[in-house]
Amino acid sequence: MESISLKTIATVSNNRKDIRDDDWGAIISEITLHEDYSEALFEGLETFSHVEVIFVFHRYDVDRHIPATRHPRNNPEWPELGVLAQRSTHHPNPIGLTSAKILGIDGRILTVQGLDAVNGSPVLDIKPIYKEFLPNNPQQPQWVSELLKDYWQG
Amino acid sequence: MESISLKTIATVSNNRKDIRDDDWGAIISEITLHEDYSEALFEGLETFSHVEVIFVFHRYDVDRHIPATRHPRNNPEWPELGVLAQRSTHHPNPIGLTSAKILGIDGRILTVQGLDAVNGSPVLDIKPIYKEFLPNNPQQPQWVSELLKDYWQG
Repeated sequence: MESISLKTIATVSNNRKDIRDDDWGAIISEITLHEDYSEALFEGLETFSHVEVIFVFHRYDVDRHIPATRHPRNNPEWPELGVLAQRSTHHPNPIGLTSAKILGIDGRILTVQGLDAVNGSPVLDIKPIYKEFLPNNPQQPQWVSELLKDYWQG
Repeated sequence: MESISLKTIATVSNNRKDIRDDDWGAIISEITLHEDYSEALFEGLETFSHVEVIFVFHRYDVDRHIPATRHPRNNPEWPELGVLAQRSTHHPNPIGLTSAKILGIDGRILTVQGLDAVNGSPVLDIKPIYKEFLPNNPQQPQWVSELLKDYWQG
């Protein structure tokens, strides 16, 4: 299998029109399930507090060059690393993955807080967060917390 | 955008040939980056302890019927819920998402423990886990822990 075709099942609506790195914490997004799908797919999701959302970075040209390595945010003060050692948009596939807090569900609209997807982002999948799937005591290099200093502000 | 074509960038190799629900904790998997990609994409990934892996449930027929709701594992003792309120394979897109512990990297091979993907699973993306991306105090219904009682055994 060299490639796979995936369906976009929902779309993100929020007031974040510009692609920029920081200030995602207060962003409220509505994730609207497409008409092809029954709103029953969301039934019971309100019994969880958080979801993981897999979405498409649809604003980037699919043919743009992805380097093998780069400095995070092109900042030479942080180490040059392979792109798979960073959660940036510079991955071979343009897909984002973020946890968000569930604020409510109304029919086919799931409202969440803290999703770092711009308005109009297509959604591929939504999974409830199970505690047993969280990593046990994860470790990371120093630069990550510096990079994310203002990421969840807003 | 109704669908998107994604590349499979790597393949999972392990000794789990059968699709079954439990006993994933001890499974060691090698994730081998395809020859189209430079092994430099993994550079620095060893400075993290965990990755998230997005992979394809390639053993299921893409045309199989996905219900809107079901009982987890078809067990009537657990509530009938929308499929997006469960982390099962019964989602509109056949994609899995799991955290795994990094054991080592050797060239284009990333070795991990605890990935719940069968041998041969195509991989779409790998992201290092950033603590700042983990959910804060997630809550879930009671049935989840019952369901996962033996999931990470093995």
